[in-house]
Amino acid sequence: MTEAIYYNSWLTKYKKPFGAVPVNEEVTFTLTCECPVVEPVCLFVQKDFGDTFEVKMRSDGNHQYQVTIQLTEGQGLYYYYFKLALKKEDQTKIVYYGNNKRFKGGEGQVYENEHQVKSYQLTSYLYEDPSPKWYREGIAYHIFVDRFNNGNADGTVSNPKKNSFLYGSQEDLPMYIKNKDGEIVRWEFYGGNLKGIIQKLPYLNTLGITILYLSPIFEARSNHKYDTGDFMKIDLMFGDEEIFKELIQKSKELGMHILLDGVFNHSGADSRYFNLFETYEGKGAYQSRDSVYANWYTFKKFPDHFESWWGVKDLPKLDTQHPEVQSFIYEGKNSVIRKWSTLGIGGWRLDVADELSDKVLKGIRSVLDETAPNSVLIGEVWEDVSNKIAYNKRRHYSEGGMLHGAMNYPFREIILGLLKNKTTPKEAAEQWMNLKENYPTEVFKSNFNNIGTHDTKRILTELDRNTSKLKQAMALLFVLPGVPSLYYGDEVGVEGNEDPDNRRMYPWGRENKEIQLFVKKISAIRNKEASLKEGDFYPFSQGELMGIIRLISKEDFVVILFNTANKKTRLETSAIPEQYDFDVFSFLNENQLNHIQIEGDGIVILKKEPNQEITISTI
Amino acid sequence: MTEAIYYNSWLTKYKKPFGAVPVNEEVTFTLTCECPVVEPVCLFVQKDFGDTFEVKMRSDGNHQYQVTIQLTEGQGLYYYYFKLALKKEDQTKIVYYGNNKRFKGGEGQVYENEHQVKSYQLTSYLYEDPSPKWYREGIAYHIFVDRFNNGNADGTVSNPKKNSFLYGSQEDLPMYIKNKDGEIVRWEFYGGNLKGIIQKLPYLNTLGITILYLSPIFEARSNHKYDTGDFMKIDLMFGDEEIFKELIQKSKELGMHILLDGVFNHSGADSRYFNLFETYEGKGAYQSRDSVYANWYTFKKFPDHFESWWGVKDLPKLDTQHPEVQSFIYEGKNSVIRKWSTLGIGGWRLDVADELSDKVLKGIRSVLDETAPNSVLIGEVWEDVSNKIAYNKRRHYSEGGMLHGAMNYPFREIILGLLKNKTTPKEAAEQWMNLKENYPTEVFKSNFNNIGTHDTKRILTELDRNTSKLKQAMALLFVLPGVPSLYYGDEVGVEGNEDPDNRRMYPWGRENKEIQLFVKKISAIRNKEASLKEGDFYPFSQGELMGIIRLISKEDFVVILFNTANKKTRLETSAIPEQYDFDVFSFLNENQLNHIQIEGDGIVILKKEPNQEITISTI
Repeated sequence: MTEAIYYNSWLTKYKKPFGAVPVNEEVTFTLTCECPVVEPVCLFVQKDFGDTFEVKMRSDGNHQYQVTIQLTEGQGLYYYYFKLALKKEDQTKIVYYGNNKRFKGGEGQVYENEHQVKSYQLTSYLYEDPSPKWYREGIAYHIFVDRFNNGNADGTVSNPKKNSFLYGSQEDLPMYIKNKDGEIVRWEFYGGNLKGIIQKLPYLNTLGITILYLSPIFEARSNHKYDTGDFMKIDLMFGDEEIFKELIQKSKELGMHILLDGVFNHSGADSRYFNLFETYEGKGAYQSRDSVYANWYTFKKFPDHFESWWGVKDLPKLDTQHPEVQSFIYEGKNSVIRKWSTLGIGGWRLDVADELSDKVLKGIRSVLDETAPNSVLIGEVWEDVSNKIAYNKRRHYSEGGMLHGAMNYPFREIILGLLKNKTTPKEAAEQWMNLKENYPTEVFKSNFNNIGTHDTKRILTELDRNTSKLKQAMALLFVLPGVPSLYYGDEVGVEGNEDPDNRRMYPWGRENKEIQLFVKKISAIRNKEASLKEGDFYPFSQGELMGIIRLISKEDFVVILFNTANKKTRLETSAIPEQYDFDVFSFLNENQLNHIQIEGDGIVILKKEPNQEITISTI
Repeated sequence: MTEAIYYNSWLTKYKKPFGAVPVNEEVTFTLTCECPVVEPVCLFVQKDFGDTFEVKMRSDGNHQYQVTIQLTEGQGLYYYYFKLALKKEDQTKIVYYGNNKRFKGGEGQVYENEHQVKSYQLTSYLYEDPSPKWYREGIAYHIFVDRFNNGNADGTVSNPKKNSFLYGSQEDLPMYIKNKDGEIVRWEFYGGNLKGIIQKLPYLNTLGITILYLSPIFEARSNHKYDTGDFMKIDLMFGDEEIFKELIQKSKELGMHILLDGVFNHSGADSRYFNLFETYEGKGAYQSRDSVYANWYTFKKFPDHFESWWGVKDLPKLDTQHPEVQSFIYEGKNSVIRKWSTLGIGGWRLDVADELSDKVLKGIRSVLDETAPNSVLIGEVWEDVSNKIAYNKRRHYSEGGMLHGAMNYPFREIILGLLKNKTTPKEAAEQWMNLKENYPTEVFKSNFNNIGTHDTKRILTELDRNTSKLKQAMALLFVLPGVPSLYYGDEVGVEGNEDPDNRRMYPWGRENKEIQLFVKKISAIRNKEASLKEGDFYPFSQGELMGIIRLISKEDFVVILFNTANKKTRLETSAIPEQYDFDVFSFLNENQLNHIQIEGDGIVILKKEPNQEITISTI
């Protein structure tokens, strides 16, 4: 009997409009129930961490129950489900209709006990907050600076640090140099630098790159430089401000923008501000309570008990709630954000954004908008940004006025699950749709997508060195909504396990040319096809086939088919159910895509531009 | 009553001749006993590991008992003591006179139980085997090649090895890069090389250096290169054969000879011969039983159970008893010894000489004498070479036809004991005299003396950074018999604990000039004063004063006085007893050295050359 009750958040005949909505927007919910009910059917709506409202739904007399509500409780998340009293002979039975147990939206299910009901999520944002066009439509290249390219003609490493090691050969695998207790005792460097990046700009241009995302470049003791020593100075191993300006200038000439990695939650212990090792002139916060930086850190007991990032003593936490720190980072006239943004960079990626309060994120964004209006601000968040809870607080990163987008690790998880055959194409489609539904549209287009970073295994290693799978992963990176961010070296088949193995030196002269050629091709397609940048997004599946539709109109679209099995198969459109307002079945048939054959682990790409024939090719 | 019995091996009125003697030499022993005895008084003589002979001594009727014996049992050690039957009223009491309990020779003592008697040692050598004059009269400088000087103009390291690290700064302290199990996983280099030594020859010349002792220079994976990879090739990080020839040539022009470090007991696992890591072309012994090197190593179970030096798997032991290995190292036409010796080096220092059989040592020496007749051969032995037992065998290193001398670590121990005030000057004098007595004279003059090497703490560190004590140690190194070998950097105050800290990079530009000046002075004195090279040696003491006499004649000598206390004192000759045939008391008085004052931790040096006045100076 309960099968007769139905609701699907992905279809506008049930929920209108689709997905996230601005605050105070009206949303119409429609539930169908073929069985007799004792009215009223009710919608329960709860504002995140707030009260639950019971709203009566109106019957149209023909099994449909509808209500339109206005989201007046402000920005954030709303949760909802339905309650019905079913009539059965002389009895009534209360049942509930809620989200599926996977909490993924779309088709839901009936629950008999209220306490088991999974709610649907409805995101309400403050305002549309589109990222700059250059960013949204760009392709990024993520450079771990020490590991990319040494621009010194004689191969010497610029300004090696005291108490450090240089790798004897660029082919050596990275390793940490630790003592018996497992603590890093000296940092090791390959010697990549900004000059080296400048040299390789023409190469990056042939790859179709338009955004360079650099790992931190400010003075710091380590090779990764997430332990900032001086926020106002380029690390001398990497170069200096003049070379950095040259990099900005030369990038611009090739249409590229630079993103800096902003590490504002903490500094290095070895910093001008904390100065644990007395490396810097003047008194740091660790040295004296009279330090001008005394208020920048939180001491439980001076000087040796201080707050630090995840208890890592080398990374004392900056008190970003303190006005002095806020002034230094963004608010002040000569703040870090202002100094570097006015040099002409494209924007910032905020490290450990979870650790920065909404107030700080808003503050940074507002200074950035004022100083360099066409800039982008993205954040490191490892989960679905729309509903992230960090430190017991619901975060509002993506609801307007904070981040344009986030590093999209959930996106990577879905790709890995799919290509490692741990999730089915059907499940992957549902997961992507869930993100599409939860994220404000502009944020969904502006996420910084990756299939690997300096914090994950290399994609080729994740995929057990399977080159065909790697190509599928690359293709997914380039065709899905959001900004593709390619981790340096992934385009030439660099392998590597977790940190530090994922930070090998770029294998100049030892590149896998086959993979490189593929990446150039798929990148060129992304850059050429407007639908891949702006088009709507519909994932679909049929058995082991994964399909992605990106379309602006029925005259302008790209469809990509991935065979996730290693034997050839055919697309049979009859197996594809109605899932969206957009009729995938008809669309595929109209374009005669039925019966298309795809090789095992293969990719087929179909392109259509206005006034042109459809082209179908294997890549 | 027993005080009336006396013997002293240092005085020729008791034993003649003094010290070690050639085989078949006659030696006369005289014992005095003031008390009545039942004759005969007997001398017991035992050849090392052989039978004991009882020899009756002749009485002169005036309390002297004498016998002359011929050492007919061949080269090696003889042990002896005396037996007397004392008459007391109607009884006789058997007593023994033997070496003192410290086993140091000179004045002995009476024992009542035979099993407690300490014997005197008497060394009998095959023949006098003097080292070459250039060596015997030289001053050596011990260079750990990777750590001395990088001769590349731009400071780059030549040909860094794969999977190695280079120090970021020359000032960094050395460290091993180990895994959790404490195993070295990558070697680290500073980049010193042969070109760098060539550049510094003029400096070494100003130091008075005439011998360069180089740590191993053949191809090897490590920085120390005691794990030879290819005995026929200079390591490419250090240079090549052409540069080595240039070093030999340029050294010659400055009157310097080069000693190579011959490491023949083992090779590296990573070698052309063993080839554990398959780094080399062709099959190594580890790879195949058909390897041409199959007989060079001893496998308990092929391939993973093999003999190695002290169980260090990285250093598989060469089977130096095997004719193929002997042919390769010395015997063959193109042997390692022949190849390098014919290039014009001065000789070899044999690493871990204890591990090489007498046969191998003789073989090496004989090939060396044949190939390059003016060469020196010294060995690494940590103890008194005259009576060393290694692997349950008494060794004959110093008895002719093997080593000219050994690295004199006992010498270092005595200096440290003295300057750290752990032994008194009196004890130090006894220890030195003991070595003088035990060693064949030529060997005693040819030992390779040191106050620190790559295998010990740095001398300045041993002496708790006390610069005055360091100067005393340096002065002792330069005035005692044997060849002074200065460990690179000790002359400019380099500090360091045990390996690897004792292998810091030479501090070019950061030298301690005060120490350097002192070393130049004392080295110049050594080079100028014949008595310091050839003179006889008499140590003496008075309280905290240590005195060293080196004299050719009463017209040609040097006396050095060390105050081992830190407050000033005076030499009072009346406190100096008769110890030797040479009358120290009279000599000091004749030269009016009585009452000389010496500052705390000070040194006073008195020089006399024929037809010149005596000069007395504080240095």
